[in-house]
Amino acid sequence: MSTDASPKGVLLKADPIANVFRDEIKAALSASPKPPKLVGILSTSAAPSKFYAEFTKKQCDALGVEFVLRKTGAATGEGGEGEGVEEAIIEANEDDSVDGIMVYYPIFGVQQDHYLQQVVSPFKDVEGLHFKFHYNLYHNIRFLDPKSLLSSVPPTAPPAPAVEDQPPEGTVKSILPCTPLAIVKSLEDIGVYNKLLPYGDRAYGKTITVINRSEVVGRPLAALLANDGARVFSVDIDSIQEYTKRPREGNDPARRYHPRHVVHPSTLTLQECLALSDVVVSAVPSASYKVKTEWLKDGCVCVNVSADKNFEADVREKASLYLPTIGKVTIMMLLRNLLRLRQYRETLKTTS
Amino acid sequence: MSTDASPKGVLLKADPIANVFRDEIKAALSASPKPPKLVGILSTSAAPSKFYAEFTKKQCDALGVEFVLRKTGAATGEGGEGEGVEEAIIEANEDDSVDGIMVYYPIFGVQQDHYLQQVVSPFKDVEGLHFKFHYNLYHNIRFLDPKSLLSSVPPTAPPAPAVEDQPPEGTVKSILPCTPLAIVKSLEDIGVYNKLLPYGDRAYGKTITVINRSEVVGRPLAALLANDGARVFSVDIDSIQEYTKRPREGNDPARRYHPRHVVHPSTLTLQECLALSDVVVSAVPSASYKVKTEWLKDGCVCVNVSADKNFEADVREKASLYLPTIGKVTIMMLLRNLLRLRQYRETLKTTS
Repeated sequence: MSTDASPKGVLLKADPIANVFRDEIKAALSASPKPPKLVGILSTSAAPSKFYAEFTKKQCDALGVEFVLRKTGAATGEGGEGEGVEEAIIEANEDDSVDGIMVYYPIFGVQQDHYLQQVVSPFKDVEGLHFKFHYNLYHNIRFLDPKSLLSSVPPTAPPAPAVEDQPPEGTVKSILPCTPLAIVKSLEDIGVYNKLLPYGDRAYGKTITVINRSEVVGRPLAALLANDGARVFSVDIDSIQEYTKRPREGNDPARRYHPRHVVHPSTLTLQECLALSDVVVSAVPSASYKVKTEWLKDGCVCVNVSADKNFEADVREKASLYLPTIGKVTIMMLLRNLLRLRQYRETLKTTS
Repeated sequence: MSTDASPKGVLLKADPIANVFRDEIKAALSASPKPPKLVGILSTSAAPSKFYAEFTKKQCDALGVEFVLRKTGAATGEGGEGEGVEEAIIEANEDDSVDGIMVYYPIFGVQQDHYLQQVVSPFKDVEGLHFKFHYNLYHNIRFLDPKSLLSSVPPTAPPAPAVEDQPPEGTVKSILPCTPLAIVKSLEDIGVYNKLLPYGDRAYGKTITVINRSEVVGRPLAALLANDGARVFSVDIDSIQEYTKRPREGNDPARRYHPRHVVHPSTLTLQECLALSDVVVSAVPSASYKVKTEWLKDGCVCVNVSADKNFEADVREKASLYLPTIGKVTIMMLLRNLLRLRQYRETLKTTS
């Protein structure tokens, strides 16, 4: 008998996950008469933003997407941080040759950046950060009529039960924010989602802890996972909440599930949540934050979304699968959104 | 000759400023066949929010405005902080008998609260926190066609030069956020604005420091004041910016001013800004933050907007006027917005 320690978990790369989407995008591009045009707006001197802009360009060049980098403010070496960014967004909104706009955040801080995210036209919002898309996501409204993006009034009808992933006649899929979507697609790819379950409920049976509750990553991710059937613990520095669409114990037993997730405060500690979790996603923007390996459930799946490493070096002593970075998947989601948004605008032109 | 120390500055009360608007609102209400209905949504257990809800009710009762307090989540004694708040907003949006909605923030923190602020219909947004109103404010677009609120597309035309304060045919005044508006109205009342100057430029010649750059108070206030002609230093914990619509030295001397404010990073320190400032407005939500009296320009005007006292006890040794609280003016702005929003909806009903 071997006296070796039990084998370590598997270290996963994002490339094979990204490649599936890259192939889809390539096929769509080759069937298209004109490459789509993406404008990147860089307005700060921050090194990670500059790096990400270069990464976007490289990926676009490789796939045949036209990428134009528009520098303003501190990114030009003259002018302040963020100077001219709003004007650059408005210019790209009004330029009919532009299919998508990507703004390199953070710029001014979460509040003013949130304002800027609403300035980007929903028809060009490749990052999926516009209120209309967030509203649909939180309400589990998966399909939309592109014309509805012209209206400021949110849809009032309850979401149609999502029985399959094909949009009903006259509708298209709603845009989802890139990073949460990349995480969901990664979890689909690595077997956390189960395709034997019905569409819209394929994370049923899974308990998932999401560490971070920002409007850009953590909260939309928790909502997406819960809308797909998971029991989700959403953890931030102040509180832990439980997102689920299933009735809680003793609660509403006649209903199988709510049409969208509901949120309750949780009385569990992070340690208790981790002990229950099949999947742990961490997106804390801090090099000093670490998820304790000893708290993880044996055989769980860990995904690091932060630019810093949120898991300890020995994470695979407990995790069965560890995905340390998803950046390459995120950029594919962005390009997928770009193609979809171009389709929105074309639908609108042909129907109006 | 007297050996007394020089006299102290004048301590101002908000009541006489509020009373002018109270009288206007009373007159408008007595000419109206039905009182407007305001729904307050309280979803937390926070004492200041509960207090503010009671204050709103008292003011509404006194003026004959129908006020309905809708409690949800932790405010009911059961349920979590903020639980059910989004559903309560949507219900009030859809209830045709409701003219205005006021949500008691903070609830979840700035990011998620910003999301909620976009859920409130712009037609019922008495607080003026919807993106469409912020966009107009930042772009110095003072009038709007109520129908444009139905569209998600921001106005692309440059703002009409505001030569008088009467809306052009077919338009109404855009809604402004209550707190910044209350500060502007207070500065008008106490003589910082000069009515001999043309409308839209009545703060010309004044240098104003605004301490706080949140999207709810500080940034909209800095923009409003700069759009009205002032030179504004916007101060937050990280940086100082200068807001002005006038060309800076050596810059664009042929133009008298920009149609809206522009923002530049400032190289001045807070002490240097205060030494130049005719007016200092502080809105820092912290009991320990104090503006140093010794840094103030002799004879300046000081306005405290925070629930905490941001000025030292001896502020009137330097300030000629000190206004320690503006809450009573803010609530009048809220009721003024309520009447204006009801007018928007009536215009829409009669023209569609």
